[in-house]
Amino acid sequence: MSAPIIAIDAMGGDFGPHCIVPASVQCLAEYPSLHLALVGQSSLLEEIIARHPAVDRARLSIVNADEVIGMDERPAQALRAKPRSSMRIALEMVRDGQAQACVSGGNTGALMALARQVLKTLPGVDRPAMVTAIPTLEGSCLLLDLGANVDCTAEQLYQFAVMGSVAAQSLGIEQPRVSLLNIGTEAIKGNQQVKAAAGLLQQASCINYQGFIEGDGLFRGETDVAVCDGFVGNILLKSSEGLAHMVATRVELLFRRSLIARLVGALALPLLRQLRADLRPAQYNGASFLGLQGIVVKSHGSAGGEGFRSAIRRASQDVERNLPAQLRSRLEHLLVTDRSTSDPGDVTAPGGSASN
Amino acid sequence: MSAPIIAIDAMGGDFGPHCIVPASVQCLAEYPSLHLALVGQSSLLEEIIARHPAVDRARLSIVNADEVIGMDERPAQALRAKPRSSMRIALEMVRDGQAQACVSGGNTGALMALARQVLKTLPGVDRPAMVTAIPTLEGSCLLLDLGANVDCTAEQLYQFAVMGSVAAQSLGIEQPRVSLLNIGTEAIKGNQQVKAAAGLLQQASCINYQGFIEGDGLFRGETDVAVCDGFVGNILLKSSEGLAHMVATRVELLFRRSLIARLVGALALPLLRQLRADLRPAQYNGASFLGLQGIVVKSHGSAGGEGFRSAIRRASQDVERNLPAQLRSRLEHLLVTDRSTSDPGDVTAPGGSASN
Repeated sequence: MSAPIIAIDAMGGDFGPHCIVPASVQCLAEYPSLHLALVGQSSLLEEIIARHPAVDRARLSIVNADEVIGMDERPAQALRAKPRSSMRIALEMVRDGQAQACVSGGNTGALMALARQVLKTLPGVDRPAMVTAIPTLEGSCLLLDLGANVDCTAEQLYQFAVMGSVAAQSLGIEQPRVSLLNIGTEAIKGNQQVKAAAGLLQQASCINYQGFIEGDGLFRGETDVAVCDGFVGNILLKSSEGLAHMVATRVELLFRRSLIARLVGALALPLLRQLRADLRPAQYNGASFLGLQGIVVKSHGSAGGEGFRSAIRRASQDVERNLPAQLRSRLEHLLVTDRSTSDPGDVTAPGGSASN
Repeated sequence: MSAPIIAIDAMGGDFGPHCIVPASVQCLAEYPSLHLALVGQSSLLEEIIARHPAVDRARLSIVNADEVIGMDERPAQALRAKPRSSMRIALEMVRDGQAQACVSGGNTGALMALARQVLKTLPGVDRPAMVTAIPTLEGSCLLLDLGANVDCTAEQLYQFAVMGSVAAQSLGIEQPRVSLLNIGTEAIKGNQQVKAAAGLLQQASCINYQGFIEGDGLFRGETDVAVCDGFVGNILLKSSEGLAHMVATRVELLFRRSLIARLVGALALPLLRQLRADLRPAQYNGASFLGLQGIVVKSHGSAGGEGFRSAIRRASQDVERNLPAQLRSRLEHLLVTDRSTSDPGDVTAPGGSASN
């Protein structure tokens, strides 16, 4: 295979091309085998690239797209009204084999809707889920869904669990522990969807299902895969980012309080810097869509350059691991064969999508 | 008024009386005006108290209750089958004026169901909510519901917002900023309940409604009151506890890694100990039920002695502030008068309750 190309929706996100183009240029400098295709208004993109004369243009192409999907545009609008949007064209490049992955920091709901329409889901998958690894006491844990599906049926939660399990295996975990996020570990706890999903998972012999897990157990490292609906997952993820930032800031303030504290702080600084880096949300930025016939990575809409670079790195890793192919072969057995008797009628329409 | 008495459900929680009795004894030593009534199996309680000969028995009474509600018992079972449970008798003491508050670390669902039956809700309130203050960058923020109501209607979220606003005012915040927790700040984001609750709050002139808030905004201190359903609130709270613990542990490990790190760590220890204390979940333990005709504080089921003491302190503060009376007078205007035209028919039964 020739060097993979990653299609970048250069117009998405809160900061747009003025953040995305420099981040892309920096990634090219860091990874000599990386090829990027920037999709967006070509004159604007050329103008920004011109400010980076050292860039290797042999590995950076521009694909023109006249339209941009706004951050608060409804997904239905994005599907119908903008055939030439940068987001759609980046996804079409993946579909047509011109790129091996797509990265966008744009409107999550529109990205989800367009990705389903352009790339289609894998057999047996109702709706794709967004997944990322969050740091835990003992390593990390895959959390899904992160906001692509606001309301989920039990069947969808079950599918997320299966996809999460396969994704964890692709990271080298042989028998990933899979848990459902809930407000208690007792069987009587939780809402109807979670209880019904537990019933489905208990019957699935191919999954190492551990039962319910609570929010604290997650960070204690008690599971490899934690499954929840996109409303809960998105709020958990963003709260964690906010809390980690708060703690880091409080540590800094603490070390500025007195002369002695400042002296100690100066000594402790390298250590604390490392901690901050370990917990920095941008480092964990980029959520992969699971369940699509192609690789799509969503960057946080408000991610800066560092965050966007993380998302590009994540896409490269997904290409390397060839996650969709792994998912397809495993899901065929787990979802299509095993669960061909399940009732597809309980699939509800999603209520909306998470913030970018 | 004579010194307030707090009724303690001494049998609840994961650790039971062997944790609760010593915590109560220690609280009595710390607060000379505090009176406690321990409710539970009297012979067992006497036996444990006998190990603390210094306790001021004039301020510590025992009320016998033969039955105990299990942590995984269904609320309906607790309501019907156990008329002599320690939880019920502690609540009845509040109802009958024999105590001014009740503290329990037992089964949340049972406590919610019994409290509603024994104490009743305030006029205009469908269901009580559990609230606590969480630390933010700039101080703290009231978060509700924390798990008493798994599924919530828009009307219930509205009522939580009003109760949270009044509770924040009782803490001295004149015009508390009230926000709905959501997965984005744009109007199109979120599930149906959250969108409909936003509509109700936009019409409520008496509330300083700020719109949607995301998980990170919460910890940045962008609101004084954050409203969500009990499923989301419980997972957010417990995840935050887990993450804070993880960060504190990582800091400690960091300072043990090398000799130099250990030396710096020894110097930094007093500062870091303070940070850990600031973020220690037990310090924030104890959630007040809002919307009942009486004061009920829920201690985390797995809280140790320190956590249970926090819950007792919280109950004392609630007695001092006389929160139910403040709520009653404000809610009468805000819920009963203002919203007498609202449809009470949209109140759904809760799907279950949060873990202890």
